[in-house]
Amino acid sequence: MTLTIAEMATFCKKKGFVYPNSEIYGGISGFWDYGHLGSELKNNLKQEWWKFHVHSREDIVGIDGAIITHPKVWVASGHVESFADIMLECTKCSERYRGDQLIEEALKISVDGMKAAEINRLVKENRIVCKNCGSALSEASSFNLMFSTEIGPAGGLRSYLRPETAQLIFANFKLVTEHARLKLPFGIAQVGKAFRNEISPRDFLFRCREFEQMEIEYFIHPKQSDECPYLKELEELEVNVYSAEMQEKNKPHGKMKLKEAVKKGVIKTPWHAYFLGLEISWFASLGCNKENLRIRQHLQTEKSHYALDTWDLEYKFPFGWKELLGMANRTDFDLSAHMKHSKKDLSIFDEDTKEKVVPHVVCEPSLGVDRAFLVFLFDAYNYDETRGNVVLKLHPRLAPIKVGIFPLVNKVEGEARKVYDSLKKSFHCFYDKSGSIGRRYARADEIGIPYCITIDFDTLEDQSVTIRDRDTTEQVRVKIRELPEKIEGLLKGKPSK
Amino acid sequence: MTLTIAEMATFCKKKGFVYPNSEIYGGISGFWDYGHLGSELKNNLKQEWWKFHVHSREDIVGIDGAIITHPKVWVASGHVESFADIMLECTKCSERYRGDQLIEEALKISVDGMKAAEINRLVKENRIVCKNCGSALSEASSFNLMFSTEIGPAGGLRSYLRPETAQLIFANFKLVTEHARLKLPFGIAQVGKAFRNEISPRDFLFRCREFEQMEIEYFIHPKQSDECPYLKELEELEVNVYSAEMQEKNKPHGKMKLKEAVKKGVIKTPWHAYFLGLEISWFASLGCNKENLRIRQHLQTEKSHYALDTWDLEYKFPFGWKELLGMANRTDFDLSAHMKHSKKDLSIFDEDTKEKVVPHVVCEPSLGVDRAFLVFLFDAYNYDETRGNVVLKLHPRLAPIKVGIFPLVNKVEGEARKVYDSLKKSFHCFYDKSGSIGRRYARADEIGIPYCITIDFDTLEDQSVTIRDRDTTEQVRVKIRELPEKIEGLLKGKPSK
Repeated sequence: MTLTIAEMATFCKKKGFVYPNSEIYGGISGFWDYGHLGSELKNNLKQEWWKFHVHSREDIVGIDGAIITHPKVWVASGHVESFADIMLECTKCSERYRGDQLIEEALKISVDGMKAAEINRLVKENRIVCKNCGSALSEASSFNLMFSTEIGPAGGLRSYLRPETAQLIFANFKLVTEHARLKLPFGIAQVGKAFRNEISPRDFLFRCREFEQMEIEYFIHPKQSDECPYLKELEELEVNVYSAEMQEKNKPHGKMKLKEAVKKGVIKTPWHAYFLGLEISWFASLGCNKENLRIRQHLQTEKSHYALDTWDLEYKFPFGWKELLGMANRTDFDLSAHMKHSKKDLSIFDEDTKEKVVPHVVCEPSLGVDRAFLVFLFDAYNYDETRGNVVLKLHPRLAPIKVGIFPLVNKVEGEARKVYDSLKKSFHCFYDKSGSIGRRYARADEIGIPYCITIDFDTLEDQSVTIRDRDTTEQVRVKIRELPEKIEGLLKGKPSK
Repeated sequence: MTLTIAEMATFCKKKGFVYPNSEIYGGISGFWDYGHLGSELKNNLKQEWWKFHVHSREDIVGIDGAIITHPKVWVASGHVESFADIMLECTKCSERYRGDQLIEEALKISVDGMKAAEINRLVKENRIVCKNCGSALSEASSFNLMFSTEIGPAGGLRSYLRPETAQLIFANFKLVTEHARLKLPFGIAQVGKAFRNEISPRDFLFRCREFEQMEIEYFIHPKQSDECPYLKELEELEVNVYSAEMQEKNKPHGKMKLKEAVKKGVIKTPWHAYFLGLEISWFASLGCNKENLRIRQHLQTEKSHYALDTWDLEYKFPFGWKELLGMANRTDFDLSAHMKHSKKDLSIFDEDTKEKVVPHVVCEPSLGVDRAFLVFLFDAYNYDETRGNVVLKLHPRLAPIKVGIFPLVNKVEGEARKVYDSLKKSFHCFYDKSGSIGRRYARADEIGIPYCITIDFDTLEDQSVTIRDRDTTEQVRVKIRELPEKIEGLLKGKPSK
């Protein structure tokens, strides 16, 4: 059963995952607050990403930079000059539209990266008018998407909220490489908020004005782009591939092993193949169905100003295949720009080749946290006809609450409390004594609690309890003293599907 | 050995904990970036806080709200009108000063909460001039500390970056209490960034313009302020108490059990005593020396506009006892203000008393993440004369890297890699093969790695390795296959001091 994005927003609100920001004041478009379950799911997701991409690897370290950053960073990166969308405004009702989205919807063509003049031409030729009142639209104008603010008292320094986390990695590049003693090839990762003043935010968490990124900038020696020592680990992985050529020839995406995609030159560097495969593996390791993921190459017209080759990892949302993660080959665009603007030497000494080089970013797996949050929810959402309730099959490591603890009758509350106390230091538990046991299971299923423990009359005799599995509803009897170890094992080992 | 705050900043930069933001462009005062070790320490600290305050308790749930929030939230909370500092400007060199700080430094008196007129009088009477050039100062003016920005295209909605996380809890209060089925008394927690446009940021991470808070708003039935069911757990805790009376009479702080402080009426409610004790326990549980902590009551003149009684938890920084955590009794100030401004009913039904009530915030333990970060570093910093190097005695649960893995000679690299691979999925490890073993231990000590494993020639024979304890330098021999469990036990069980 698939929900629409609007139904997912309703589900998220009803269950305490996500609320419209400042709802009591009517909300503001593009801003969301995570509730008592959403904040847990989001934290788990970020922690799992960090463990997988930083802690379990020798070649990647993390940083955590400030949101408000020196304006010169954004001049150097090109954002001040060109991080803009084309805006059209209704001459009568003042409704505002993002040019590319309006054209895309009206003409069903892809217009990513289209310039203002071209959009004006298409609007005129096709007589595209305001969707709201049918009046004529203004000439297209460019609108910079960065939020600005002023630092210090009146007349202070005008700066920006970062529109991407990446630039903090470049600005700190030299310090981090020295202090973490990094040797090429290596990556620097960061998780944190970014802000884009979208003209028309939409699709719930998919396009927000305030959002979060999990990002790696991966640096190589410019001559190393053909040598990825890690691809071997993933070369047999079969993925859905949608190349620029397939798109141009109107073909559907096809299945391909990474090995094959590199050999045929579909994916230009082994590094891209590796990191695209790595991200798919990460999603799959947390219960996401690989069939709902595909990699799509950017067309020549839609690539960013700095990119040599770009691939998106896409997910099959109810409103179509959409970008989860953009993976550009940024070359030395950013480091060189910062060298030029700061007049600082950001080159590093490579011990293998014994030369000073400005490393190239061969790819930047840059994943939206909020989009990943949606992916895991869509993939986990099931309506179970037999049970008559929703079962949210989140991977146990992602589930906001790991264990439900239910005393079957009032008489065993003492024992149930003891169980709760013995588990609460290690696992996020939920104690629930209200309603029938069926109602309590249903409530737990709906918010994705993977294991529920019931304490019954027999517990008083045999010091055992029942653990019920969310996905199978199977029950096993376990001694109370063995519980912590048992739950630990279940959470570590068991895949959710 | 105690470092000054400037020396701590230097240490943090040199080791990769914290960098000035955008240093290659000269930096901006009040903004900092966390490096490859600092980001780990900060993450660990936040996770430990969340586990202790949210996961292991039944009465507290968490949320994660947006940074940019509807401006009406900040009108209702009083921030638009009165969240301001008094600013003085030099009439010649334009240097700007925070009025209270300038007076405090010049006259050595406490002026928290002093109004502009009073500051002008003191400046005139005492002929206080610009510290920079000695010229006369302007009349004091009020400067609102919120960063503002505009949402949407030109002429959009002017809003603010949140100056505190608390208001997101109040704005979402009704939705969260309903969906999480909370019953009084209960708390709602949040961890996240906040922004204050400080006139003169200073003391490294102590007073930044961008910082992070870990906060709980704890709600009770207005008639429950005398009944805290949890105080019993902590009533025997002895803490350093510095009451308003002691301050007024120029007495030093004194030791007191929480039980005693409540009984004598020094701390007005058992809730305050409990939460102050809880925070001290949290710091102590992660290796902080309790002697460096004290609780200080706000004087009548320095209390916030909404507060009935406020206590600070203070730490003995090298620049004096300073606030770590402010704990106001906010009563129903915020919820009532939001009810008035939003015209929404935010009262809840209390099942015990069977009446609808607007709950009171009896206290709000609101802790600065960056300040806590400093506390743990100051308390952990040791220079070991025998070893001739710094030993950073961070609690193992806080340490950025848990395990160092050192092959003693090149020949055992294969075995060392196997050890690394077997541990990296569970613990953040650091593989180091460069330099003498002594140099490697020193490097590990300086960044607080609690356990180092050396792989030597004997390992090839007996499949055993040596684990060295950072604090004692004691070494034990352990079988490779027993390593994961052994490390797990060490990290869980062992206090660092």
